[in-house]
Formats: sequence, structure tokens, C-alpha cells
Amino acid sequence: MKNKKAVVLLSGGLDSTTNMAIAKEMKFDIYALSFRYGQRNSPELEMAKNTALKFGAKEHKIIDINLASFGGSALTDNIDVPKNKGDQIDGSVIPVTYVPARNLVFLSLATAYAEVLGAWDIFIGVNALDYSGYPDCRPEFIAAFQKTANLATKAGLSQKNQIKIHTPLIHLKKSEIIKKGDALGVDYSKTLTCYDPTPEGLACGQCDSCVLRRNGFREAGIPDPTKYVR
Amino acid sequence: MKNKKAVVLLSGGLDSTTNMAIAKEMKFDIYALSFRYGQRNSPELEMAKNTALKFGAKEHKIIDINLASFGGSALTDNIDVPKNKGDQIDGSVIPVTYVPARNLVFLSLATAYAEVLGAWDIFIGVNALDYSGYPDCRPEFIAAFQKTANLATKAGLSQKNQIKIHTPLIHLKKSEIIKKGDALGVDYSKTLTCYDPTPEGLACGQCDSCVLRRNGFREAGIPDPTKYVR
Repeated sequence: MKNKKAVVLLSGGLDSTTNMAIAKEMKFDIYALSFRYGQRNSPELEMAKNTALKFGAKEHKIIDINLASFGGSALTDNIDVPKNKGDQIDGSVIPVTYVPARNLVFLSLATAYAEVLGAWDIFIGVNALDYSGYPDCRPEFIAAFQKTANLATKAGLSQKNQIKIHTPLIHLKKSEIIKKGDALGVDYSKTLTCYDPTPEGLACGQCDSCVLRRNGFREAGIPDPTKYVR
Repeated sequence: MKNKKAVVLLSGGLDSTTNMAIAKEMKFDIYALSFRYGQRNSPELEMAKNTALKFGAKEHKIIDINLASFGGSALTDNIDVPKNKGDQIDGSVIPVTYVPARNLVFLSLATAYAEVLGAWDIFIGVNALDYSGYPDCRPEFIAAFQKTANLATKAGLSQKNQIKIHTPLIHLKKSEIIKKGDALGVDYSKTLTCYDPTPEGLACGQCDSCVLRRNGFREAGIPDPTKYVR
């Protein structure tokens, strides 16, 4: 039987790379989708390209979309990324690194791509536990989006098939994500999640994302291959 | 009292221009949003710029987003636009001019812009009657999107306010839209809805969109100022 097609959102970070490994394990043909959205850390896109190759993606589309022109976030604005706030990551405060409506925009574009491909499956590596207060990582958002995507598209009018948004990481802890990816052969030295990497792609070691990652490896009991500045 | 901000999607066509006139009549401060999405008819973007100026928009953002790289539609692919199919416009067949998930993508970006602005109101000129079978013009899509947008955003977490998607044209016939806009001072000679205009911005007079427009003016009993090739 022919493999089914899946659109897999890929940032080049730890979560999205693990997410892709899971889609591959589930025997989907992978159509990777990344965005150049005015973010400062473009080394992660290089990681994404390598990851798409490694997992044998049929295509890897990189779409330019300048969310920075709206402003509103430390990831796209020219302001400092907060450091050493790891003890404050409890989901009660939405960090300034929040990009407005990012997953809504990314999933919408993934839906457009899926419709053109004739794919019914979309994978996104969102995580509700370590989500640092991002509203668009919550299961209720994903469920509402799936319903909307089916109403939005010609694809969704089909009686036979419905678009499904897969979120295999949504209820996992960071350490569980790392164990899962490690078992599936993910090379985490080839992933980058830092909000503020050096131009060479070294992780800062101090932003929320680095703190979560370091703690995840420690908890998983797996050596952390990440090159941190400090 | 200070006017409220609204993000108003603006293509430069008949519907979106009327939609903007209505937002203005409702005393919103207008933040116009247009897209350069690989479409062939860019003269409409020039119309959009003039319209934004005319209605005193506070800002007009034009976002580049290359949906053409996904393929899948006559509006973005290099294939012929269907002509003289006016008698077949009955909503039963989805035309090849359909751009995949377009309104989903546009509304998602409007939501991102609204969140950055601190706006709670988004206007889109969709129309369910003359919609030629586009699934993303249906009221049930708009309702589902509104719910999703509120779940997706920091804005939507607010107890005080919710994002509202305004669709003032959704239940109007084309002739009713034209009468409404005419009463509000819209200059329809400065709008372009043709799927296949000349480089100078003349309407072809034969595509679905031109046929609906012509019939609309005739039914409204208002002279059609559009310059058609034939």
C-alpha cells in the first residue's frame, strides 16, 4: 500500500524534529514545511534542512513570511531576549518571546499546503506542559483549529476524509520527548531551540528554551549534546 | 471617546472596498491589511493603496506571502482563467480559481496583526451568496475561525474582550453590496475584482468575477463605471 502524505511543520528545534521522527515512524511520506518569519535565529533553518533530508522528506518548502513587520515580540523585534528566568517558567505569565498568533498562522499555511498535496494529515510539535504560557499550544486550540480547517477547505467538504492535526508531543514532558526522539534515532546535536543563538549556531544556555532543554536532558538521563555558550 | 481599532482585510476589489466603507461608517480606526500572494493581478493592490488612503486608514500593511509556491490554483498558477462560465456560477462546483485555504491564511495573519495592535475587531468582505462555491466564505467557517482565533491568542485569554470577525456583506446579494457602497460614497471605478485584468488594470469582462459584477450593477440599477476589455 502507498504511504499516506503528511505535512510536517519543522522549525529545526528539539520538539519539531522529534515530531518529524514520529511521523516517519508512523510510515507517512513527509512534506516538511518551515518558515522564515523574520526571526533572528536562522541557524535553526539550516538544522531544519538537514533534518528534512535525514528523514527522507519528499519535499521541504521554506516559506518567507514577515511577521516581524507587525512587531510585538522579542523573537522578531530588535529587543533583548530575557535571560535566567528559568525559575519563572510556570505558565502563569506569557513571555515576551511570544510571537502573535504564530501557530495559527503556521497551521493555516500547513492546511493550504496539505490541500494542494491532497494530504489529510498535519503534524505539529506543540507541547502543552512546557509551553511557557503560549495559548496556541493548548489542546483546545488545536481541536478548534482542526474543525476550522475542515470548514475552510475544499478538502474538508469531502465526506470521505477529514483533515487531522497530529500533536504527538502535546502531553509529554520535555524529558519524555527527548527519550522518545532518542529511541527513534534523533541526533539532538543537530537541533536548535535557543531563542538567542550565536551566528555560528551555539545556544545561549540561559533563555527559557535553553533552560527547559537542559533540564529535559538531565531528567531523561541522556547526555546533552548541545553546544552552549555557557 | 476614542475610536476603536479594526483590522480590515483589503484586496482592492468591490467587496473588500465596500467592507472598508462599512467599517469606517461604524467609526472604527482602520488598519488595512493586504497581501501580495503571488497573484497575477497586481493592479488591484494599487487600487487597495488608494482606497486605504481615501478612507483615512491609520496604517496599511502589505504582506508578501507566496502561496504560489504551493501551486494548486489558476489565480497563482500559470494556467488559463476560465471564461464565459457565468451561467454555471451556482455554487455547486468549486472553481479552479480557488486559492487553497486563502481566507484561513488571511484571517490568521489579520489576527496576528490585531493582537499586536491591541485590536478586537477584524473585518472581512466575504460573501456567502455569490461565493461561487468557495468553502471559506461560509458563515460556519467564520464562526469556527472566530472561536479558534480567541483560543490562539493572548488577546483571546482576556476575560474582558474577545476577537470579533465582522462580515457585513456575508448575506448580501452583489446588487445589495453595490447599493450599500454607493450610498457610502465608494467609487467603484477605483476597485478591481477581475481574475485576469490587463497590465493596465482593465477588467476582462468575461471571468466569473466580472460576470457577477456586471450583473450586480445591472440589478442595482446603478451605472457600472468599470472599464472592461469587452
